[in-house]
Amino acid sequence: MSSGKQDVIIIGGGLSGLSAAKLLIEKGLNVVVLEARDRVGGRTYTVQGPEFQYVDLGGAYVGPTQNRILHLAKELGINTYKVNEKEQLIHFVKGKSYPFKGPFPPVWNPIAYLDYNNLWRTLDEMGKKIPADAPWSAERAMELDNMTMKELIDKLCWTRVAREFATLFVNVNVTSDPHEVSALWFLWYVRQCGGTRRIFSTTNGGQERKFIGGSGQISERLAERMKDRVKLNRPVVRVEQTKGTIRVVTLHGEEYEADYVISAIPPTLIQQIHYNPPLPPLRNQLIQRVPMGSIIKCMVYYSRAFWREKGYCGTMMIEDEESPISLTLDDTKPDGSHPAIMGFILARKARLLLHLTKSERKQRICQIYARVLETEEALYAVHYEEKDWCEEQYSGGCYTAYFPPGMFIQFGKVLREPFGRVYFAGTETATKWSGYMDGAVQAGERAAREVMCAIGIIPETAIWTHEPEVQEVPSRPIITTFWEQHLPSVPGLLMALSISTCLAVAGVVMTRKICLLRA
Amino acid sequence: MSSGKQDVIIIGGGLSGLSAAKLLIEKGLNVVVLEARDRVGGRTYTVQGPEFQYVDLGGAYVGPTQNRILHLAKELGINTYKVNEKEQLIHFVKGKSYPFKGPFPPVWNPIAYLDYNNLWRTLDEMGKKIPADAPWSAERAMELDNMTMKELIDKLCWTRVAREFATLFVNVNVTSDPHEVSALWFLWYVRQCGGTRRIFSTTNGGQERKFIGGSGQISERLAERMKDRVKLNRPVVRVEQTKGTIRVVTLHGEEYEADYVISAIPPTLIQQIHYNPPLPPLRNQLIQRVPMGSIIKCMVYYSRAFWREKGYCGTMMIEDEESPISLTLDDTKPDGSHPAIMGFILARKARLLLHLTKSERKQRICQIYARVLETEEALYAVHYEEKDWCEEQYSGGCYTAYFPPGMFIQFGKVLREPFGRVYFAGTETATKWSGYMDGAVQAGERAAREVMCAIGIIPETAIWTHEPEVQEVPSRPIITTFWEQHLPSVPGLLMALSISTCLAVAGVVMTRKICLLRA
Repeated sequence: MSSGKQDVIIIGGGLSGLSAAKLLIEKGLNVVVLEARDRVGGRTYTVQGPEFQYVDLGGAYVGPTQNRILHLAKELGINTYKVNEKEQLIHFVKGKSYPFKGPFPPVWNPIAYLDYNNLWRTLDEMGKKIPADAPWSAERAMELDNMTMKELIDKLCWTRVAREFATLFVNVNVTSDPHEVSALWFLWYVRQCGGTRRIFSTTNGGQERKFIGGSGQISERLAERMKDRVKLNRPVVRVEQTKGTIRVVTLHGEEYEADYVISAIPPTLIQQIHYNPPLPPLRNQLIQRVPMGSIIKCMVYYSRAFWREKGYCGTMMIEDEESPISLTLDDTKPDGSHPAIMGFILARKARLLLHLTKSERKQRICQIYARVLETEEALYAVHYEEKDWCEEQYSGGCYTAYFPPGMFIQFGKVLREPFGRVYFAGTETATKWSGYMDGAVQAGERAAREVMCAIGIIPETAIWTHEPEVQEVPSRPIITTFWEQHLPSVPGLLMALSISTCLAVAGVVMTRKICLLRA
Repeated sequence: MSSGKQDVIIIGGGLSGLSAAKLLIEKGLNVVVLEARDRVGGRTYTVQGPEFQYVDLGGAYVGPTQNRILHLAKELGINTYKVNEKEQLIHFVKGKSYPFKGPFPPVWNPIAYLDYNNLWRTLDEMGKKIPADAPWSAERAMELDNMTMKELIDKLCWTRVAREFATLFVNVNVTSDPHEVSALWFLWYVRQCGGTRRIFSTTNGGQERKFIGGSGQISERLAERMKDRVKLNRPVVRVEQTKGTIRVVTLHGEEYEADYVISAIPPTLIQQIHYNPPLPPLRNQLIQRVPMGSIIKCMVYYSRAFWREKGYCGTMMIEDEESPISLTLDDTKPDGSHPAIMGFILARKARLLLHLTKSERKQRICQIYARVLETEEALYAVHYEEKDWCEEQYSGGCYTAYFPPGMFIQFGKVLREPFGRVYFAGTETATKWSGYMDGAVQAGERAAREVMCAIGIIPETAIWTHEPEVQEVPSRPIITTFWEQHLPSVPGLLMALSISTCLAVAGVVMTRKICLLRA
């Protein structure tokens, strides 16, 4: 059931695969995209319904510096709107709600403040020393890779306040727990997103905006343009490379042939494909070592955006082991309709709560919202939608793959390494906003250019490109204040105190001696 | 191309799958075994050749308390012989060779000795508190699972000597590095093998014996008995459960039907199969989180067993980052023919050295043997065989799967959990000698009995059985001396010293006071 030999077969109809296909088709190449599911979009997934109009149950947020996805969306006529952050955010900790403004909740205890300030500063300073495209070559790379993020947090933080918020920071950014991930990998991950503030912020950060109509439209419109080049319900089970050609066989026995293949699926899902000749040993073991994160994305709909009336924007950072949700954002439509709160159940919590029924989860979520927002109104949801990404055979989890300790150094460089005439895309192979929609596009386009280079259409120097800023979404530089840069850490303060005490004591002794001598 | 509906389809023709098939066939059930490779045996692999007669390139060692594999082999007429440990073993450290006798190399520095003694004692004591069949329910289970074995070693050990040998101990036992594995998982692993001495020893331990003719014969003879029930070259790509039946489809499009399926492949390889309905969320994520270890098994053949002439048995424990090999054992045939040294390239070293050519590896291995055995004779090998298990698509690695930090608690209990009418075997699902041939048999037989129970042939109480000791391979209890049990640890010693110093000082002061009072 072959449909003639193609130039390129792309495995995976997510953003990365479709971005690759777009570039190749624009160059006049024959392309087929084989998608396992009955829909395109992969880890982006927009659903329509009368109760909520549309909702992004997968990847949704975009922000400044994510110019590749923003350009692509713009070209397809899809616009963004700003996630509501006008009113105050809430930090819920030790059972109490503390309203605030800014990317990170403030800390009032001066010792904890120093600790906290030092944490962000150090993570960013360490990150800057890690090359985005070759993290394994960083100074101290092995030491950091052989350590979990939990170990690094324990080393850096002197207060529980900082340690616990750092845990939430890891949970929110990579849907896994600090003890699960390599410190080197996490530092790299934050760095290639532009640092701790860029990755975590709504305004001027990764969560600044969403797409009007949903992110799923990007893949849908790309697929519409490509018409029957995109084949749904075609999980690939076999890739056979011979001298002249690559044969790709689907689960239902269809066969395709091409000169090149782009694998645009998460690394771990490469295991779903039987390779002949088999994958090289390091890739064979890499694909067992990069699990996908754990998340249930939950949307609670209300009749009114009552939180805004109370002066809250809808962002809640919740530190409470009993709370299913760790982070929320307002998910009301840009026209003010369908008021909603989006919440993430992350990492260990996703695994603990996935056995509950949908309505049990909804109930627990509304209960914590009522506590944090301090109003019973939060109990009266009008609708609830959720998506457990742990159950997805053809995503494996969300948002992205993580590297457990010790893997990044020894296996990381294999991620983008072609195997014969098979090239590798997917957001995990990106060097900027990897793990995000933007990284998916970067990776897809880069893999497409690698194939073009192999064919001889473009030179090797043209594979990696710079993406200019999309003017509708300008980025402002991340500015740290003089005090943020120069305040001591807790051990720094203790050292300063002990030195000054010594000096003071020495001073007193000297003064006394001088007095005695003079007397 | 279906061959009529079966009672049970077994996926995987390794020791576990074939053990399951044996039991089911003995009960009169119709069974088909689908094996991906062109041979049975999985991670056991015996090869014949004129230069070496036969060689086990995969799992080979057996010892006392491994009664399931020993019984099975005995029934098939396959006997064991003792690995040579008559002469002295060698511990090579800091560039020098130290001959010794016993399971662990001795330590002469008294502080290091206390540290070392305390390490083994503590690992065993901690292990005893971990239930072999439910390690996630152990006291402190979460704390230990959120910690890497490297962290635990760093906490327990005060000396570099102990820390570095502990690293070798982890490398040798689980073909991975201390920073890669969960402390809870590793403690459980050692425990379910019978403790630090049982797992590491040749005499009275896991490496006491090998099978005359090779371990691969066990699977081969089982398969011979089963004739055309065992189908080779049938990688399974699809398992479809409907109400009445399970349909299993191979990579080449053959279809089989059965009432039950036993999956007898390593957990990570379950990803190679597309399930419909999809696997439950926890198993879907588990199978991304349990990578197989990394090892290259290397056999160097010599014209004479020159090491024996020098008073060495052939066991070398090599602590040297530059040495490819960490552990060797004599691999001379029981009749004294084909003198050989078996050596393991483990974990990080396997990954670093797999890009070398076979002859480059051989050369480096012979060079380190010459240094350790202190003779140039080691350079003159007459033949070399090796097997890099990292490259095996249908094993993923060897010896077994490991759990990175944080996985065992949340995903471990899913390992043996049936999914509809699919049951799970494979050595990773065993509760005794998991990771070994013995565990493979235990798991296969248990899964077969689970199916029998589901069919209604046996009661639930008959699923788990005790295996009596094989009299030809008696086990002696592991005995620790009074001193091993009661010597203090290094911090214990320091504490004792400081208390006794305080008491002595107090004594002197008191004596002086009394003298002064009397004066």
